[in-house]
Amino acid sequence: MTANADDARRERLARFRPASGMETPRFSGLASFMRLPVLAPEAAPGAVEIGLIGIPFDGTTTNRPGARLGPRAVREASTGTRALNHATGIAPYALAACADLGDVPVNPVDAAETDRRIEAFYRPLAEAGLVPLSVGGDHFVSFPILRALGAGRPLGLIHIDAHSDTDDSQYGGSRLTHGTPFRRAVEAGVLDPRRCVQIGIRGSMDAADERDWAKDRGIRIVEMEEVCARGLPEVAAEARAVVGDAPAYLSFDIDALDPAFAPGTGTPEIGGFTTREALHLLRALRGLDLVGADLVEVAPPLDAGGVTALAGAGLLFEILCLLAERVAARAAA
Amino acid sequence: MTANADDARRERLARFRPASGMETPRFSGLASFMRLPVLAPEAAPGAVEIGLIGIPFDGTTTNRPGARLGPRAVREASTGTRALNHATGIAPYALAACADLGDVPVNPVDAAETDRRIEAFYRPLAEAGLVPLSVGGDHFVSFPILRALGAGRPLGLIHIDAHSDTDDSQYGGSRLTHGTPFRRAVEAGVLDPRRCVQIGIRGSMDAADERDWAKDRGIRIVEMEEVCARGLPEVAAEARAVVGDAPAYLSFDIDALDPAFAPGTGTPEIGGFTTREALHLLRALRGLDLVGADLVEVAPPLDAGGVTALAGAGLLFEILCLLAERVAARAAA
Amino acid sequence: MTANADDARRERLARFRPASGMETPRFSGLASFMRLPVLAPEAAPGAVEIGLIGIPFDGTTTNRPGARLGPRAVREASTGTRALNHATGIAPYALAACADLGDVPVNPVDAAETDRRIEAFYRPLAEAGLVPLSVGGDHFVSFPILRALGAGRPLGLIHIDAHSDTDDSQYGGSRLTHGTPFRRAVEAGVLDPRRCVQIGIRGSMDAADERDWAKDRGIRIVEMEEVCARGLPEVAAEARAVVGDAPAYLSFDIDALDPAFAPGTGTPEIGGFTTREALHLLRALRGLDLVGADLVEVAPPLDAGGVTALAGAGLLFEILCLLAERVAARAAA
Amino acid sequence: MTANADDARRERLARFRPASGMETPRFSGLASFMRLPVLAPEAAPGAVEIGLIGIPFDGTTTNRPGARLGPRAVREASTGTRALNHATGIAPYALAACADLGDVPVNPVDAAETDRRIEAFYRPLAEAGLVPLSVGGDHFVSFPILRALGAGRPLGLIHIDAHSDTDDSQYGGSRLTHGTPFRRAVEAGVLDPRRCVQIGIRGSMDAADERDWAKDRGIRIVEMEEVCARGLPEVAAEARAVVGDAPAYLSFDIDALDPAFAPGTGTPEIGGFTTREALHLLRALRGLDLVGADLVEVAPPLDAGGVTALAGAGLLFEILCLLAERVAARAAA
Amino acid sequence: MTANADDARRERLARFRPASGMETPRFSGLASFMRLPVLAPEAAPGAVEIGLIGIPFDGTTTNRPGARLGPRAVREASTGTRALNHATGIAPYALAACADLGDVPVNPVDAAETDRRIEAFYRPLAEAGLVPLSVGGDHFVSFPILRALGAGRPLGLIHIDAHSDTDDSQYGGSRLTHGTPFRRAVEAGVLDPRRCVQIGIRGSMDAADERDWAKDRGIRIVEMEEVCARGLPEVAAEARAVVGDAPAYLSFDIDALDPAFAPGTGTPEIGGFTTREALHLLRALRGLDLVGADLVEVAPPLDAGGVTALAGAGLLFEILCLLAERVAARAAA
Amino acid sequence: MTANADDARRERLARFRPASGMETPRFSGLASFMRLPVLAPEAAPGAVEIGLIGIPFDGTTTNRPGARLGPRAVREASTGTRALNHATGIAPYALAACADLGDVPVNPVDAAETDRRIEAFYRPLAEAGLVPLSVGGDHFVSFPILRALGAGRPLGLIHIDAHSDTDDSQYGGSRLTHGTPFRRAVEAGVLDPRRCVQIGIRGSMDAADERDWAKDRGIRIVEMEEVCARGLPEVAAEARAVVGDAPAYLSFDIDALDPAFAPGTGTPEIGGFTTREALHLLRALRGLDLVGADLVEVAPPLDAGGVTALAGAGLLFEILCLLAERVAARAAA
Repeated sequence: MTANADDARRERLARFRPASGMETPRFSGLASFMRLPVLAPEAAPGAVEIGLIGIPFDGTTTNRPGARLGPRAVREASTGTRALNHATGIAPYALAACADLGDVPVNPVDAAETDRRIEAFYRPLAEAGLVPLSVGGDHFVSFPILRALGAGRPLGLIHIDAHSDTDDSQYGGSRLTHGTPFRRAVEAGVLDPRRCVQIGIRGSMDAADERDWAKDRGIRIVEMEEVCARGLPEVAAEARAVVGDAPAYLSFDIDALDPAFAPGTGTPEIGGFTTREALHLLRALRGLDLVGADLVEVAPPLDAGGVTALAGAGLLFEILCLLAERVAARAAA
Repeated sequence: MTANADDARRERLARFRPASGMETPRFSGLASFMRLPVLAPEAAPGAVEIGLIGIPFDGTTTNRPGARLGPRAVREASTGTRALNHATGIAPYALAACADLGDVPVNPVDAAETDRRIEAFYRPLAEAGLVPLSVGGDHFVSFPILRALGAGRPLGLIHIDAHSDTDDSQYGGSRLTHGTPFRRAVEAGVLDPRRCVQIGIRGSMDAADERDWAKDRGIRIVEMEEVCARGLPEVAAEARAVVGDAPAYLSFDIDALDPAFAPGTGTPEIGGFTTREALHLLRALRGLDLVGADLVEVAPPLDAGGVTALAGAGLLFEILCLLAERVAARAAA
Repeated sequence: MTANADDARRERLARFRPASGMETPRFSGLASFMRLPVLAPEAAPGAVEIGLIGIPFDGTTTNRPGARLGPRAVREASTGTRALNHATGIAPYALAACADLGDVPVNPVDAAETDRRIEAFYRPLAEAGLVPLSVGGDHFVSFPILRALGAGRPLGLIHIDAHSDTDDSQYGGSRLTHGTPFRRAVEAGVLDPRRCVQIGIRGSMDAADERDWAKDRGIRIVEMEEVCARGLPEVAAEARAVVGDAPAYLSFDIDALDPAFAPGTGTPEIGGFTTREALHLLRALRGLDLVGADLVEVAPPLDAGGVTALAGAGLLFEILCLLAERVAARAAA
Repeated sequence: MTANADDARRERLARFRPASGMETPRFSGLASFMRLPVLAPEAAPGAVEIGLIGIPFDGTTTNRPGARLGPRAVREASTGTRALNHATGIAPYALAACADLGDVPVNPVDAAETDRRIEAFYRPLAEAGLVPLSVGGDHFVSFPILRALGAGRPLGLIHIDAHSDTDDSQYGGSRLTHGTPFRRAVEAGVLDPRRCVQIGIRGSMDAADERDWAKDRGIRIVEMEEVCARGLPEVAAEARAVVGDAPAYLSFDIDALDPAFAPGTGTPEIGGFTTREALHLLRALRGLDLVGADLVEVAPPLDAGGVTALAGAGLLFEILCLLAERVAARAAA
Repeated sequence: MTANADDARRERLARFRPASGMETPRFSGLASFMRLPVLAPEAAPGAVEIGLIGIPFDGTTTNRPGARLGPRAVREASTGTRALNHATGIAPYALAACADLGDVPVNPVDAAETDRRIEAFYRPLAEAGLVPLSVGGDHFVSFPILRALGAGRPLGLIHIDAHSDTDDSQYGGSRLTHGTPFRRAVEAGVLDPRRCVQIGIRGSMDAADERDWAKDRGIRIVEMEEVCARGLPEVAAEARAVVGDAPAYLSFDIDALDPAFAPGTGTPEIGGFTTREALHLLRALRGLDLVGADLVEVAPPLDAGGVTALAGAGLLFEILCLLAERVAARAAA
Repeated sequence: MTANADDARRERLARFRPASGMETPRFSGLASFMRLPVLAPEAAPGAVEIGLIGIPFDGTTTNRPGARLGPRAVREASTGTRALNHATGIAPYALAACADLGDVPVNPVDAAETDRRIEAFYRPLAEAGLVPLSVGGDHFVSFPILRALGAGRPLGLIHIDAHSDTDDSQYGGSRLTHGTPFRRAVEAGVLDPRRCVQIGIRGSMDAADERDWAKDRGIRIVEMEEVCARGLPEVAAEARAVVGDAPAYLSFDIDALDPAFAPGTGTPEIGGFTTREALHLLRALRGLDLVGADLVEVAPPLDAGGVTALAGAGLLFEILCLLAERVAARAAA
């Protein structure tokens, strides 16, 4: 970087960072993600490097709804996060200029239309090289995001979830549901299945062959039992190997957590991750070439004591640290 | 009726009635509507006269979702109702054979398909003269029901609600939402707008002309303020006059109640009915030629202390009394 | 009273009154009823004139349980009440020495044994002329209390409730349930049915003849619909006339309130009293010769936002005012 | 107004109005008050005429805390309000340019410092003639607001509340609590007690003389019992007469509502207003020369089903209509 | 089996299996256990091999009540389970014909009578060789079930719980409580104490000798601390050894789980199992000759976010897999 | 001890112990800590050895409030604990006479005054050698307690928490907050920083240097990640070594637990301790010379299902066992 560019970057970093909780209380002010400045998406390219985006859509939920209210609840809970990751030492806002880009203008009663709108929202951001960190909404939203981010170069995927979400269709032919995004994304050529890994999959199944499609295409599924048997470090190492050095996406479904840690989600499955394990898993993913990430399926009306939104916000910060470190590495390159 | 027919009817009445709470506790057993026997819909014609039906669909909700979980919650709460209306003296199960016909097989991610399935579910029941009492689900479900019940004879309508639900479209063209069913039904010719009355309408409006369409077609809108000013008896009398003696439908949106009485709904509006007022209003409708009714928009994840489901169940019993009295009158005719 | 007796009374009044909320916050300290001193029941005669007593028993509940936890929740909520009734001007603690006498030592799994223990707890208090104000527990507890208070002189009764609680038996012969206390009390000769009035009765009934027993014995039942039609002042006046000047008991079942005001109860019925109406009704009962009272059926696990315990505590204070005024009148006589 | 000024005003009105719920769903986007644009307070004078402001402070609460979280919860609930008052026909955003000015930078652990900060926040707005509509926080916040708005001209006051909030001190001398703001404001000469009216006061009292100070200074206290006896229209008429035509302030404590309608508040008192009554009362205040208003004591952690925040948001819209109509009248003058 | 018998079995398996969640949503339809067909108990012998049964009774609860509402809540939550155990590969409905047999007709106010009714309900099922999987209700219900199943052949027992439930009596002589079932069952000769193992026992004790009776009779108690120290595999292996190859019963008290995973229970004890551990423990019990099982003490009114019912449903499915595998093994033998 | 002293002690032990849950149910009676006798603090010296004390103050909370309601909620939950620690065998009430000494008379709106009152409350107890076990309130309360207990002899500290609570000031100079107590205590010379250890610290930080002050003074901070890496036994051993044999204090902030186990606290941080780990950690501290302890930051309005108060009560019992064992050791010395 030239000195001028460097100065400009420093200025942006100084401007696009959260309000401090040592000066005004964290519960004060409008609830933007991490108390970050709010920026219109069209103003983001050139100004910020990471954009936090809400997608308040749950119109493809096949079970209990409510994830459309997730972005607001995660925003609210995220105002409790601070500037520095105590465990990894990453200070994300010193590494990347960040802003809250608001919500995608979804149509709650039209999934196909919303699918198009999401892709249209992300495409210019992707083309500008901005790294989006999205909060759902149900898991379907990953599909149009991936179409924007993976256009022209199939991405790798770290997918942390209780469910594989690679169904073909449900209810006699519905193909756009929150159980199908990754199958659709592979079919669309924006995910490279051999560079995809799913971690924490569990729960009873509808049929013995329901994961065959994914396995046949080379998607690596690490069920929760395998995680327990082998331990997180080994699983994380394998996940990194599967994804490799090429660009990749990270998708975290909050139902990967156990319902005690995340009751507020539409399709909870007992026997899941603790938040401590999830933090360890995410921290083990440092250095991957992540070009975007999402956190989905936080359904506030089903929550208890706000722990799901709180867990979502904490994991969002952890993911943000991964993205910011990567942004800084690219800026330094 | 012949003596034999009379015997058969008596036998059906004895069979299709609720389990008694004096013999087994009300909280025991599977939660069917009113602890009634469960009957497959195809077995209902000829066996029962009133069918209670759940429609667990909220895919056209434009606000907070959750009404898809309404039928189960209302079933559960309805097990606390008993056999005799203490205020009107109506003993519905002595007047009409009733059963729980289960739920319509909805597709939670496809409104158009669900629209077809609902109509297909109700059409044979309507053709057999069975009176359906439905529990939503969001308010959209009234439209396909009305198509089945009003085919060939536009119905009158008593519509108790905070919202007029006669929007044309939302979000740039979506015409099948829970804000449009009665406009669609008028357009489809299954509602006679001049025999329609809406009671309890209130809440801020998007635009000054949003009720013009309804008024232009002759729908009588009694806003909550007019109810307060004139009193329920007078309003009820006018409503009866508007609807007249011809066949009519009754639709009760739980958000007609004040949020203190029904917090568990997607679009609550303060300043609503108390349950006592709602009971009085319903009781004032005895004698109308009701051919069906529904209770919609109970959204259990948004409820507090179960009062919304409880109110829904209590009102459902009251509506059932209206229907049963009418069934008996027809049987006696 | 002699001067000495007067001094002793003044001293007792100064000692047995609540801690002030202007000196220490109302949420501080152990939660006794009204922040009153706690006194062992055996020490109460001669020391205090009104004893507040908990009966944490719900073993005869035929519906949803939880009222066993009522005394603690009402104690907690009652710490928010203050020293003076703003509407009637009654300052109860200036009129009668009051204390929290703790809970009756119930046996949660044995109704018959608990029945005996309750009577044994109240009999010495009754013999000493102490006025008990009890908090249930389910409504069954009124029966043993009435045996203690009404021994030798059948009492009149003001009974405010959604249910008549004069069933004979349930589930094939169970005669000690929360649906039977007043029938048992009449049979036991401790209630004079012709001096009993029940106000607010409502809700669907199991059978058309279920109130015949009560009516046949002369119990006056004022259903909620009659309350609405005639107005509270007229109903209260009639109630006073029914009970007359002789000793009487007041029993308030929290389910007399509408579920919006009291969701935390086992058998809620929609269409009930508001708290404002309940306060007006109680205030209209001044001057009756009340020898005791109870507030029952607060079930905290079923509550929402604590409004039921709060309503219970507010009504308890109102009842306490009635009792204290009567105690003072007797002391002055 | 000149044509240019008129154009500028029209432009401001077009710019500073809520996002429409017919285009994007109400649950989407950051939760600003009424989905209004967010504006820094220093940019407000000259741009907008009404500023909605949060004051997340509950450090002087003597009972249950939580009102510091009120602004965010009311913002969230207020996104459900729309553009037109169906009852009065007022379209506030067509009458006055409105924006969300964010929160006052309170110090949660220092009441005296916060008191200064609030006044400093409001003083320039007041001097610019901007009309502030504030959301607490506890009731103490009214005092510094009144110092800013009433400087140099004592204001009249419409105060709707369960409590008079004119205590002198608590806990041995603390004079800045949420029980003292209006006494402090009268002492500070920014309220004219003879033009003050308090409506809905109720609940037990600590001492018989606790309202003497207020009455001695000429404050008109209309207790809830008087409201019930005389009716809202008559009470509202008297209130208007007391306040007169001179500038006045409106303060609405959410605990004026009954706990069934507003459980989420620190010091609830049973027997309060319904939301319907509160709406009617507010609508009867049209035409008063209001220079500001607040809505206080919404405590989300104590809420149930969100009904308190919902009621707060609905009443806030109603108050906004009063203010906007007044702003338009002044602009037209 | 003969070819005919095999055909009949196949037909029964095809008929008595859950509705699929790929065809109709899991939240639709009446909530039977696992969305299984409902069958009258008298029709079960010969038709199904495993009967799921509710026992809505908590009349012997010595602590917080609510478990009487457990069967309905577990039914509701169980509709989210699917057809195949992803960890063990067991497809229970392919191995055993299953149905929901409804609830035992309990008497909520009479424990002795309910004790008789439960035994009477189970005896014909036991005699027909049907395997009952029961959902309580409080833990007392295990005693009459064991009398039916263990008549003539004392059973072994796997008992997973926080409490030993081998008290002699409470409150001065009450012997039928939820703290005594296994002592009563040993005394009745239907449990062989030397083949009984209790796992997860923890929490403070009333007296140092309270587990002496159990230990003296040879019951193996593995306290939670021993589980932690030795690990689940070793404990499970010992449990299998204790129980041996003879017929045994499995009883799972939900309070074996930690309150974070199961807050909705009457007597929670911190420091319990996670659901993941419980799943592992159950899976380690494959092959035992289980003749029945129960899951007890889910108390919905005490739950938060439904996680207790959800955990109960998930564990119920896991237990069902154990039973189904055993049924198939017997059928194949 | 002489025989007489021994007798007196035995008598005190017999008198100052909890009511048994085998005689009266645990949910009955006023909720004192552990169902212990209540004793005025001035009567405690000479009568009891351990005093349980509530401090209902949260006026220095910088985040979400509610901990002022902690003492009552923990009292209520603590009535479920029993007499004997099943894991360690400690029977605390046989080792030390214990009583509930009520609450410190705090001033909720004045931190400085409350600070003085707390110290004044504890000083005579400390001088009499009584061991206080306190329940907050927010963490600030530890500072005045430590001034009373550590006067003249700086204490060691075991501090289990998510936060270090050694900030200097917040919001431009506020030095008395719940984020500063241990810095103030070191400055005041009542804590010896080289004998202080903090365990479980985690969560994002405001600045990289925010723990430098503590580390510079020699406070040993064991972050949660180090706990996970090294294991609890090793960490506990080091903690014992740091504190040594001299008098020490134990402070347990409930937010040390994960939010799944303790959602009801003002500043939750994901990735915390399970209750099982916390129990193990506490049990590993046997033998330290503890002169007092506290459990803080339980905020009931933020709780879900009561699990936080339950965890608090269970940990309180565990801490009580540590203190009682120490009291007995001193008495025996």
